[in-house]
Amino acid sequence: MRYYDFALAPNPRRVNLFLAEKGLVIDTVEINLRGGGQFEADFRARNPQAMVPCLELDDGSVLGETMAICRYLEVQHPEPNLFGRDAREVGFIEMWNRRAEIEGFLPAADALRNEGERFHGRALAGPRDYPQIPQLVARGKARAAAFLADLDAHLAGREYVAVERFTMADINAWVTVEFAARVRVEPHAEQADLRRWYAALAARPAFKALPPAPPPA
Amino acid sequence: MRYYDFALAPNPRRVNLFLAEKGLVIDTVEINLRGGGQFEADFRARNPQAMVPCLELDDGSVLGETMAICRYLEVQHPEPNLFGRDAREVGFIEMWNRRAEIEGFLPAADALRNEGERFHGRALAGPRDYPQIPQLVARGKARAAAFLADLDAHLAGREYVAVERFTMADINAWVTVEFAARVRVEPHAEQADLRRWYAALAARPAFKALPPAPPPA
Repeated sequence: MRYYDFALAPNPRRVNLFLAEKGLVIDTVEINLRGGGQFEADFRARNPQAMVPCLELDDGSVLGETMAICRYLEVQHPEPNLFGRDAREVGFIEMWNRRAEIEGFLPAADALRNEGERFHGRALAGPRDYPQIPQLVARGKARAAAFLADLDAHLAGREYVAVERFTMADINAWVTVEFAARVRVEPHAEQADLRRWYAALAARPAFKALPPAPPPA
Repeated sequence: MRYYDFALAPNPRRVNLFLAEKGLVIDTVEINLRGGGQFEADFRARNPQAMVPCLELDDGSVLGETMAICRYLEVQHPEPNLFGRDAREVGFIEMWNRRAEIEGFLPAADALRNEGERFHGRALAGPRDYPQIPQLVARGKARAAAFLADLDAHLAGREYVAVERFTMADINAWVTVEFAARVRVEPHAEQADLRRWYAALAARPAFKALPPAPPPA
């Protein structure tokens, strides 16, 4: 099994926190997304989606998609459980995984990729080129800020996002908040619950061991 | 437990096919999204996200998000298994769930909601209003068509999308293809594998029992 990573990018960071919380160490190849490593022939022959992270299994098949990789590894290494132990946990963890991604993470990606030269003609990751749509910058920031506000309200009186213990939903929401800062959407001073939760997670060993995220674009 | 549904909308259709394949019958309330039922006070008091489908649990908490609802019910009703029996199944089902949604379903929604009067000022579902971005119409259609092409290529020599039996990934991909037709993105005549798979699923009792989808917008 081999893991294709790029430790600065937000999707791999979700997997990397999952691996560290599980205590898993996997043979890893760094694909330099800033140098176009995902488009080199050797990698694309493995993963035609030209996306990182992905996991090459021992039979040569390649599993893409952050949450698919984590779920695959959760079955192989069930403890500590991060995706839920009963129906209620499974449901609310998935609900918050999805809210973090759809309402916060993807909008932050819209804001990042739809302006500037670096992603010119590359508004979406993957094998196909799409032009930037400048209106997605402001909309992406507004949506990410709305998610932070919702998350702050939700965290009042709560230690963790989905259930009464640390789970994958915390990882997904935390990386979303971290990623939003790259487009200068940050917790407000008065969002005390969001700040408390974010700082508490940042103090966990797995989070402290993560290389720093890139500065704002 | 009470299920809030709108049988014409694509997200509830994913849950409804899941329920029918499981043989589950749940107390159901229809929320008329075309009449703004999701914004009525009684429903919003239950679900501030103002989205359908959602599942009200016996303790009064409300579980939103299509895939969270299905995963909750899968734990309670494990057979027939639709989310995977081992790590490999779990991983590839989730990969295709996500590819169908991110590469096909959400782009089709972009194409549908970013033009015309019906979704004016309502480019995204949920509690907040966002203006339409006309460029997302053509981009949404192009992305949905690309997903159909990728799915057709993937289905060569395959009966099902993710593993060698019917799973949630088939439901998600099928509803995505169905939904794309509403924005006039349809399988090409030469996409024989996609057509074969789509027709085979449509002949299943659960799919035949589904009310017809709305015609193209």
